[in-house]
Amino acid sequence: MDTEFKTVYWHNGKVKMIDQTKLPLEEVWIEFDDYRDVAEAIRTMQVRGAPAIGVTAALGIALAASRFESSDTEKLIGYLTEVGDELAATRPTAVNLFWAINRMNDFIRSNRNMDIENLKNAIIKEADSIQSEDVTRNKALGGFGNELIDDGDCILTHCNAGALACAGYGTALGVIRSAWKSGKKIHVFVDETRPLLQGARLTAWELIHEDIPMTLITDNMAGHMMQMGKVQKVVVGADRIAANGDVVNKIGTYTVATMASIHKIPFYVAAPTSTIDIAIDTGEMIPIEERAAEEVLGYKGNNWARDDTSIANPAFDVTPNHLVSAIVTEKGILREPYNESIRDVCREKTTLA
Amino acid sequence: MDTEFKTVYWHNGKVKMIDQTKLPLEEVWIEFDDYRDVAEAIRTMQVRGAPAIGVTAALGIALAASRFESSDTEKLIGYLTEVGDELAATRPTAVNLFWAINRMNDFIRSNRNMDIENLKNAIIKEADSIQSEDVTRNKALGGFGNELIDDGDCILTHCNAGALACAGYGTALGVIRSAWKSGKKIHVFVDETRPLLQGARLTAWELIHEDIPMTLITDNMAGHMMQMGKVQKVVVGADRIAANGDVVNKIGTYTVATMASIHKIPFYVAAPTSTIDIAIDTGEMIPIEERAAEEVLGYKGNNWARDDTSIANPAFDVTPNHLVSAIVTEKGILREPYNESIRDVCREKTTLA
Repeated sequence: MDTEFKTVYWHNGKVKMIDQTKLPLEEVWIEFDDYRDVAEAIRTMQVRGAPAIGVTAALGIALAASRFESSDTEKLIGYLTEVGDELAATRPTAVNLFWAINRMNDFIRSNRNMDIENLKNAIIKEADSIQSEDVTRNKALGGFGNELIDDGDCILTHCNAGALACAGYGTALGVIRSAWKSGKKIHVFVDETRPLLQGARLTAWELIHEDIPMTLITDNMAGHMMQMGKVQKVVVGADRIAANGDVVNKIGTYTVATMASIHKIPFYVAAPTSTIDIAIDTGEMIPIEERAAEEVLGYKGNNWARDDTSIANPAFDVTPNHLVSAIVTEKGILREPYNESIRDVCREKTTLA
Repeated sequence: MDTEFKTVYWHNGKVKMIDQTKLPLEEVWIEFDDYRDVAEAIRTMQVRGAPAIGVTAALGIALAASRFESSDTEKLIGYLTEVGDELAATRPTAVNLFWAINRMNDFIRSNRNMDIENLKNAIIKEADSIQSEDVTRNKALGGFGNELIDDGDCILTHCNAGALACAGYGTALGVIRSAWKSGKKIHVFVDETRPLLQGARLTAWELIHEDIPMTLITDNMAGHMMQMGKVQKVVVGADRIAANGDVVNKIGTYTVATMASIHKIPFYVAAPTSTIDIAIDTGEMIPIEERAAEEVLGYKGNNWARDDTSIANPAFDVTPNHLVSAIVTEKGILREPYNESIRDVCREKTTLA
């Protein structure tokens, strides 16, 4: 797995991705011909991770455009709006999904005067740009994040905010990759991240591929490792960040952040600015996806709890801003007060975009 | 599953137990003819839980005594000491194991003048008493613990400190059973408790059997449930308690206790006084068992992480005494300062025993 690894991309007129539900035991690549199958792949988490599902949705719109058969541009625009709505309905929490769909819609509308074949090609090119910009952004983010890591650090991460969560390179793992490539001797503690085990399956797979030293632990061991003095930094990704710096990320992140705070360990969130939802004041206003019971009852149909067991399965939780030591973005490191640092970076984002 | 359910007991000249590795999908009972198989059952966690493995070791010694063929009492005593050492080596952390073996050894030595056949029968009777006393103790403990529970409480528990962790009735679940039987409308949040999933498999099974309302969650959801105001009390068991009130219990307990403290939720430890190791000053002095990699890589040979993944697998952690709101024992409720309350209850224990 080199640094140019792509999780999801446009390939020979199709959308191609690695099937993350099969990792790490099998490396299966799938190609999609129909945007509805792309939507289903997001829903079933064959592709997951906030930036990655944004990129995938953009590619899904490009796929729908490329297969559109009428020569009526307005019909195409109406159709792609519906396609965007369908893709937006796949998962409710990550804002990058909506960000990417909005960007595609804006692009399409502002180029409505183009000849339809040129417009279709431009749409594909735009989705492709979202893909490649994501990787560029993560490398920039990784560079900033590297400044926060010391030689010899043991870094704990939760879930997968790696290349697999993005178009490539990763956010939290982008920081770790950058630190490792810059020659720092680091070690990574990987929370397995129940119920879907993205840490055990995806983060561990990425780190093993790059020979970065790591230790896989169950989620309930993280606090113990901190207590034993074995963790110097925590770096995680984010699915959505509110205007005040509250962070919505994989279930368990709030507990990791609280335990880090108790042990005076810096807790860093690595996320592109597209993860920031300036329209949302605080974390509690962000909808938290509740997923199916079977994920908690076992793993992939191999159940260890009885079918009649009542469960809860919130996919995310909210880490309040006061637990966040810094937010690492592609534009630099944001610190408290987040209301101000986020407002400033988002103003810049609007200006540059 | 009635309140007279026995996890492990003497039955027709054999040691009989429910195979906890098969629960909850199968209810398999096994009978042992050889104490070495009893030792193996402790090691492989067919029986687990601090009080239960104490009872099992005592029954293992009785089994060895009943199968001893020489008529030389001194040989029997020497042999049973070796048997006790072998049983003591199965698991290093829970003190009840050593407590039960010591009690059997003391009993055997103080009755060395008995006729050998009478002695053998007395040894079996003594092991049987350890079994039945455990249940009696847990019911007393449950009664005291019930005073700490309010009508309408949602109670979080970690791992299994239930009937299955004891000879019967349970410690943490003994408190919950007593509260439920006294008519309080309670709800239980059950941490699944990776890696061996004692919560999902055993605690959920016990609660479903008794129709006590419950919700199974992954370990990393507990903090979120507290943050959402859904948890009013935490009750857990203990594998060993130091003289200062530090509690060694299943990995993850320290994190649950810390999160409870942050959210001002009382954190109760329910354990018989046999769990207290007065000879150990503080929790850090207690050896923590490190278990095999395969437990973390997957579940029962169905792996989701690659075989070459480095892991850590400490089976327990230490909860410092300042996080413990009270320790519920069969002799009453202990509070800070634990050095004093524990010294007093242990003096009483020695006097009464």
